[in-house]
Amino acid sequence: MPNPTAAMLVIGDEILSGRTRDANMHHLAGELSRVGITLSEVRVVSDDAPAIVAAVQALSAGFDTVITSGGIGPTHDDITADCIAKAFGVSIDVRDDARALLAAHYERQGTTLNEARLRMARIPDTATLIDNPVSVAPGFTLGNVHVMAGVPAVFQAMVATVLPTLTGGQPLLSETLRVDRGEGDIAGPLADVAARFPDLSLGSYPFQKDGKFGSNLVVRGPDATMLDRAMAELKALFA
Amino acid sequence: MPNPTAAMLVIGDEILSGRTRDANMHHLAGELSRVGITLSEVRVVSDDAPAIVAAVQALSAGFDTVITSGGIGPTHDDITADCIAKAFGVSIDVRDDARALLAAHYERQGTTLNEARLRMARIPDTATLIDNPVSVAPGFTLGNVHVMAGVPAVFQAMVATVLPTLTGGQPLLSETLRVDRGEGDIAGPLADVAARFPDLSLGSYPFQKDGKFGSNLVVRGPDATMLDRAMAELKALFA
Repeated sequence: MPNPTAAMLVIGDEILSGRTRDANMHHLAGELSRVGITLSEVRVVSDDAPAIVAAVQALSAGFDTVITSGGIGPTHDDITADCIAKAFGVSIDVRDDARALLAAHYERQGTTLNEARLRMARIPDTATLIDNPVSVAPGFTLGNVHVMAGVPAVFQAMVATVLPTLTGGQPLLSETLRVDRGEGDIAGPLADVAARFPDLSLGSYPFQKDGKFGSNLVVRGPDATMLDRAMAELKALFA
Repeated sequence: MPNPTAAMLVIGDEILSGRTRDANMHHLAGELSRVGITLSEVRVVSDDAPAIVAAVQALSAGFDTVITSGGIGPTHDDITADCIAKAFGVSIDVRDDARALLAAHYERQGTTLNEARLRMARIPDTATLIDNPVSVAPGFTLGNVHVMAGVPAVFQAMVATVLPTLTGGQPLLSETLRVDRGEGDIAGPLADVAARFPDLSLGSYPFQKDGKFGSNLVVRGPDATMLDRAMAELKALFA
């Protein structure tokens, strides 16, 4: 049985404008691999409601699980929660359970739960909350979509909370062989090995270092024995 | 008139598996901002032909320009060129102009132009070649889609070649104000400023450092005078 699939939706102008380099995609990709969920697609869209709604609907229909990052803070450009509600056709308002979390937190801090902060308690109807141990304002799960904050520390904490609740598959193992020859030299025999191991994924990733070309050959699959056999063949050919 | 739009399609299992952290998205985002082209969406898909074809068709129809990275090398997992041909419904084969470039290069190097390397001369009918000053194997442009290599040095060289041929807009200027207060404190007055400057984009990007919350307020727009006015208002409120 193939592993479950996931997609990620990154929401935020700051990535698309080149101001910030996304860090959450790389983190999530590694975590999902570890539990045997295949990250099949990532989309990055701007803080634009129609773009967010369309992407959520497409990804939610196309993959087992969707994880979003960004756009759930208290400022005017945080529109993710409203977009998710719209994508699923459910209503959204300040919800008592989320408000209670925020109220307790700000009271401990001696800070007012003002109108802006209360925006973070806007949760779509029927969604369940995702705990935020870093800064309290919760994420939420609606259908197969898990909505998380964009701040990397909060995103990572929410991923750690949600991951054990997902149905995983066989963890994807991988081994890498570095070959100091260009891809053009090795592509023929490499394709033969790939054809002999149809249950493995065999990728070739070229690099350039000190003016010379090389390739990292990466074998991926759930079966350690088969992985070792393929790796032995590659070493016999290229090492 | 709004600026022209662009989308990027990153092709490659190595990003989605968490093995490699993508570097091309951040580079392209910065370059496009500089010439006034709005990067509206990025998609990352795996080395899977139906996924690549569908993404190319959707992005090509939705945006003025599409730039792809990855999957145009000589190995069995390099399937981008064939997918682009399929997406546009044109034929693809080894083309004389691309073969001549490769033949001359490998002759200089004293290397054989073997069958694998010849794969890099597979260019869709009617496409124009994109020069590759790093490792010769060309990219290509078909319709509004520019197909580039994934190796960062080659990708950057190809972006530098193609960028001057695109219709740009007004370069997007930006100014950032760092505020050592959490978003919840500033969101109300910030939304008022955003509403007073509808032609600017005013983003708030929270951060956490040494256990304290802060926000980077970023004002973006093409008009330097208006940018300065908005920034002066923000400083008066928060600095």
